[in-house]
Amino acid sequence: MRSSTNFNMADAVALLTRTPASLHALLGGLPDIWVRRNEGPDTWSVYDILGHLIHAERADWMPRMRTILESGETRPFDPFDRFAQLRQDQSRPLEQLLDEFASLRKESLATLQALHLRDEDLTRRGRHPALGVVTLSELLSTWAVHDLNHLHQLSRVMAYQYRDAVGPFKAYLGVLHCKGHSAS
Amino acid sequence: MRSSTNFNMADAVALLTRTPASLHALLGGLPDIWVRRNEGPDTWSVYDILGHLIHAERADWMPRMRTILESGETRPFDPFDRFAQLRQDQSRPLEQLLDEFASLRKESLATLQALHLRDEDLTRRGRHPALGVVTLSELLSTWAVHDLNHLHQLSRVMAYQYRDAVGPFKAYLGVLHCKGHSAS
Repeated sequence: MRSSTNFNMADAVALLTRTPASLHALLGGLPDIWVRRNEGPDTWSVYDILGHLIHAERADWMPRMRTILESGETRPFDPFDRFAQLRQDQSRPLEQLLDEFASLRKESLATLQALHLRDEDLTRRGRHPALGVVTLSELLSTWAVHDLNHLHQLSRVMAYQYRDAVGPFKAYLGVLHCKGHSAS
Repeated sequence: MRSSTNFNMADAVALLTRTPASLHALLGGLPDIWVRRNEGPDTWSVYDILGHLIHAERADWMPRMRTILESGETRPFDPFDRFAQLRQDQSRPLEQLLDEFASLRKESLATLQALHLRDEDLTRRGRHPALGVVTLSELLSTWAVHDLNHLHQLSRVMAYQYRDAVGPFKAYLGVLHCKGHSAS
């Protein structure tokens, strides 16, 4: 399945499959300085990012895919709450979040496989409440890039904790000069 | 061991220890679109980034630490070649690079532990050929942040491959708006 862009189902699934184990290997058991601190007021910690990935896994990708397949453009997607995780119980250990994310991702990918999407399904259209018409392959591509978006963000949030500790080396560390580009 | 900045040896080692497994979980067996493509002329693919991490593990961190401990500020660090990996054999599978990185990192951390550094060693000074005087704790901090710098970079390089595939969702994906901040 390859569309006119670079989208390919097997490539996307290969990436989506690997994210949970990669996050687990990076973050499991890490000291709080890396996972509980953020970049200042109204920014997210790694812990918050994990909560967001969990919420997206429940409320964004598969539900929106179903909306496209069942209602096409006639029913807009339900809006997604980007801040839902900030209202969750903050006392759960990060390891629980990592496990929950892994288990939800596994379910999502099993559901995706069970849909047996065909090439022609990839061009089916839905309606995003703000962005307008999007296709199924754009939604699937975004699911994969969304993982990378938050890997990009969490590496920056973690690096920020050592922004002074690196001293003059800061000049060579691009991640410490990243401003976050709004959504990331 | 905590310096006046946030540096703490146990925190830094916790992160440095986890990077190889995290990269292995993310990248091992991934299709070429994610690991062999770059962001255009004179940019690095994930494969190139892995080569750079390997070269840094051999030629940067531990050798420079030794230079500080043995010569202090009297002998500047040997310059580091940021492009060495581009002259390496490009036909080796990525999995070999991942394994090599993991094994070199393990060695580096064993050597670090064997040095039995004390708190007062962290303020020992060396001379960077371009940046001037740096301390041992700044070098150690940079080692950790350098991992994050390249995690930040590789998530961006991977996301770039789907820059068109995501369609209108691009507006919400900060990683696709990241310009790379020079060194990253």
